[in-house]
Amino acid sequence: MPFTKAELKFIKQLQQKKYRKQYGAFVVEGWKSIRDFIKAGYKPQKIYTTLKPAGLQNIEPPEIVTPKQLKQLSFLQHPKDALAVFKIKHPGIIPDKGLILALDDLQDPGNLGTIIRTADWFGVRNIVCSQNTVDCYNPKVVQATMGALANVSVFYTDLHKFLTYIDLPVYGTFLSGENIYRCTLPEEAVILTGNEGNGIKDEIARLTTHRIHIPKDRGAIAESLNASIAAAIVLNEFYRRSK
Amino acid sequence: MPFTKAELKFIKQLQQKKYRKQYGAFVVEGWKSIRDFIKAGYKPQKIYTTLKPAGLQNIEPPEIVTPKQLKQLSFLQHPKDALAVFKIKHPGIIPDKGLILALDDLQDPGNLGTIIRTADWFGVRNIVCSQNTVDCYNPKVVQATMGALANVSVFYTDLHKFLTYIDLPVYGTFLSGENIYRCTLPEEAVILTGNEGNGIKDEIARLTTHRIHIPKDRGAIAESLNASIAAAIVLNEFYRRSK
Repeated sequence: MPFTKAELKFIKQLQQKKYRKQYGAFVVEGWKSIRDFIKAGYKPQKIYTTLKPAGLQNIEPPEIVTPKQLKQLSFLQHPKDALAVFKIKHPGIIPDKGLILALDDLQDPGNLGTIIRTADWFGVRNIVCSQNTVDCYNPKVVQATMGALANVSVFYTDLHKFLTYIDLPVYGTFLSGENIYRCTLPEEAVILTGNEGNGIKDEIARLTTHRIHIPKDRGAIAESLNASIAAAIVLNEFYRRSK
Repeated sequence: MPFTKAELKFIKQLQQKKYRKQYGAFVVEGWKSIRDFIKAGYKPQKIYTTLKPAGLQNIEPPEIVTPKQLKQLSFLQHPKDALAVFKIKHPGIIPDKGLILALDDLQDPGNLGTIIRTADWFGVRNIVCSQNTVDCYNPKVVQATMGALANVSVFYTDLHKFLTYIDLPVYGTFLSGENIYRCTLPEEAVILTGNEGNGIKDEIARLTTHRIHIPKDRGAIAESLNASIAAAIVLNEFYRRSK
């Protein structure tokens, strides 16, 4: 066996936030993403793979496993070609400049992963989350980022305090507000996105300096957009204004 | 018991496409969405609810169930206040005018649901899918549309034939192409989105008249955007141009 029962147990525990915190480790699946994390300076503690990879330097040689063994370790229904355990990197000091995305209690791992992937695409590399936002090292989040998490710093903090003390305009997306197509969008700002069901909490909403909305067709019955879609449209609007 | 074993079995079968096709029925959960479908002219065959609803006319009175019984019927981990079985409505003739969204083998139910919700938001009410695209009456799709499926017609057809004979410009999103921020976008067109992993198939890509791309930040490591995000950004660009 290329791994012990204890190793298998350890990896399975990393599906849970409490163990990721305790061990300071998380799981990435698939060579494409694993390479992205290594390139970004994350340290792999261990890699299990069904393929002999080429061109990896300065890391311990990976453990070769059979597809069946990889399936035992994997969190995915259809495992990829490799699974790695990485050390969590502490993101350092919360930035106070540039474009920052702020998330108020976002709950769905798929949404957070998609938002991180989209933020990276549009060059937003800092995301500040409320403490109740889903953990960015949750395996479903990591998967949905498609490697982009390696390129984006995600901070968890008291969002109310962060928004109180930050010296940047705060743009919040609401169901009513200024038409995003028409307003001026600055190069430096906080872009605030809310929870899937409840949007932005009142106490947080009070700290926005600019209320914006995404125009909706008159005949639409949709009451809101999916949180990751709303964030993407706002990121797209900031990005197109900067070009 | 407010429902028989046979009813329970029938509802559970509706998770599978083959039974939805055989019975011509699908499931919607939650009053908000159920009302949207009724308003849109869908016929409920049966409604099970834990609440006595107000203001519903011209339908059979719903079956009152306990939360525990609703949980037995429900496909959701956290069931809502009601579950309804509706008759599938045949969407009629595929349109050849206006803005039409076309999907080439989209696979993920969450993505299709989110795309339907976003299309409705931006006033695109017709979606033409390749035969291999995930079924729009899949419960996860219905859930993710948040009722918007009631307002949007989804057609399944031979996409190659459809694009060959349609007399509209066909805009496809690719990793390279004209910058979407700079190109003219017409009021009537087909907007083509591809599969999550493989994008738009070559044989379909050949039928596009305009190749567009969503600009990406130089430092990004993301190779692509999530399919529902890419579709949303393109829909947003068409919508803002029409304003």
